[in-house]
Amino acid sequence: MATTSREIRLKSRPEGMPKADNFELASVELPAPGPGEVLVRNSWMSVDPYMRGRMYDRASYVPPFQLGQALQGGAVGAVVQSNDERFKPGDLVESMLGWREAFVASASNLNKLPNAGVPPQAFLGVLGMPGMTAYSSFHRIGAPKEGDVVFVSGAGGAVGSAVCQIAKIRGCTVVASAGSDEKLAWLKSVGVDAGVNYKTAPNLLDAVRAAAPKGVDIYFDNVGGDHLEVALEVARPFARFIECGMISIYNANEPPPGPRNMSYIVGKRIKMQGFIVSDFMDMREQFIAEMGAWVKDGRIKWEETIETGVENAPKAFLNLFTGANTGKMLVKLD
Amino acid sequence: MATTSREIRLKSRPEGMPKADNFELASVELPAPGPGEVLVRNSWMSVDPYMRGRMYDRASYVPPFQLGQALQGGAVGAVVQSNDERFKPGDLVESMLGWREAFVASASNLNKLPNAGVPPQAFLGVLGMPGMTAYSSFHRIGAPKEGDVVFVSGAGGAVGSAVCQIAKIRGCTVVASAGSDEKLAWLKSVGVDAGVNYKTAPNLLDAVRAAAPKGVDIYFDNVGGDHLEVALEVARPFARFIECGMISIYNANEPPPGPRNMSYIVGKRIKMQGFIVSDFMDMREQFIAEMGAWVKDGRIKWEETIETGVENAPKAFLNLFTGANTGKMLVKLD
Repeated sequence: MATTSREIRLKSRPEGMPKADNFELASVELPAPGPGEVLVRNSWMSVDPYMRGRMYDRASYVPPFQLGQALQGGAVGAVVQSNDERFKPGDLVESMLGWREAFVASASNLNKLPNAGVPPQAFLGVLGMPGMTAYSSFHRIGAPKEGDVVFVSGAGGAVGSAVCQIAKIRGCTVVASAGSDEKLAWLKSVGVDAGVNYKTAPNLLDAVRAAAPKGVDIYFDNVGGDHLEVALEVARPFARFIECGMISIYNANEPPPGPRNMSYIVGKRIKMQGFIVSDFMDMREQFIAEMGAWVKDGRIKWEETIETGVENAPKAFLNLFTGANTGKMLVKLD
Repeated sequence: MATTSREIRLKSRPEGMPKADNFELASVELPAPGPGEVLVRNSWMSVDPYMRGRMYDRASYVPPFQLGQALQGGAVGAVVQSNDERFKPGDLVESMLGWREAFVASASNLNKLPNAGVPPQAFLGVLGMPGMTAYSSFHRIGAPKEGDVVFVSGAGGAVGSAVCQIAKIRGCTVVASAGSDEKLAWLKSVGVDAGVNYKTAPNLLDAVRAAAPKGVDIYFDNVGGDHLEVALEVARPFARFIECGMISIYNANEPPPGPRNMSYIVGKRIKMQGFIVSDFMDMREQFIAEMGAWVKDGRIKWEETIETGVENAPKAFLNLFTGANTGKMLVKLD
């Protein structure tokens, strides 16, 4: 019995901001699973800002996406047919084989998900890569202390909103920057102390200064660019800068100049450190235990922005760069 | 018996590159030392790039220099008269009361120097603040491993040349950037593997790439600006950037834009950390013991560039910014 799967392929490499016609929808007939292989039907897939980097044809920490081939990314789904004893039909699994409705792959590409009393797509958000990204780096690089002032850019997104709430649990004061009053209202409803709407603030530095008059001990950077310059300006001595992403420059053909105030790194003794979530895999068990408990207790909340159907995955991805999502951007596939 | 001392005062705050007329020579009559006070005649004083920062009227990690008052900085000298039992005439002492020939101060401002079999001015260089700056940060932030490739900017100066030699002792490959072939020849004579003359290289990035074809694990930054941008470009994954200074922008009225390639911090997982030598004072005993032994054994060498007479201290200071010094820039006072 053949299974048909629709998938999204990279048709051409974006120059600057990606466009719909960089992607194409295709339909494939999946083979029956061979020995050790499993057939999975995805129920949810994730789109994330980091995927933009894989659309460039350059060496990086993950290989570039290939033209004419299906894109990849986090997905959760159910096992349909299994030739591996570790999986049986109905098992909930995660994989990096998103951007497609179904797939056949070696069982080694799958990770069985627990029945944690949360909706399955949470494993693409607070209990998945974005949550682990937030949890691991905030503790490992940020080294938070009670009373620290934490500034989070891109705070309305999946990672940023998790950081805000973890920081509150750790007794920090949290200042969030996001691109709409709605996002900020939600962030305040989950405990954030002060918000800055970077799209409407006449002057970002003035707005952040007003929100964090004593300065900032930890800056969680999802944005780069002017947010990074402002963070250097308001940083207190020995501030830690968690460099998670710089979405403001991912689409730049000509990389914009960096902060004009880099010398604060010396005088203020700032530690600025980049990371990839896989660097901190030694914290995974701790993350699952602690974050899982916070989610169950309702101490960590999340929002989702959902597109439906694999054909809308490019739209969901493009919307990340206009800030259309509050919380985790997801594509529902079944 | 009155003692006359000539001193250099800050006459006006420099705008951009400091000029001779920002300084003035004055003569003062010193009082006899009171209870607990000591009269010291300086034999050597230090000029250092960080002093430029204190000439701005702004809050920083040290208070700004005051107009019309003598400048301050590291000095070594001999006790002439003492009303404190810890010091006796002839003792060699260091203080932060440089830019003057003699002074009366509370004994608490003095640090007695050991008879270490080295010339006294070494305590303003390899065995003093510049040596401690190099030693502490290279180990604490750089976390060097044998085989690491280390790129040092401003390598011809007191701090940079110490870093180069410490890195060689630790089994690293060292690439040095300096502003003259003479400086590079000396650096190679003390073990540096490859040199880049940033003043004559047609393209700094190409030159550094040629000198460090495998990339760089540790960047010791004395310069900032284009050197920092190049270092981000050639950095290997998990590189450590020791942010000691950014002499290229100390004199800028309009701060220049920062590196265009800041996003490498994320993708390459770079750790960039600023510091002030006083942050690492817990390493002082280790520094004295190990660096002292290396100096005695001849494993650490140094050069000096000397001006004579307190009236030439401004000239010595100004020459730091044109790179006129090889090694430690000193003013001989007696």
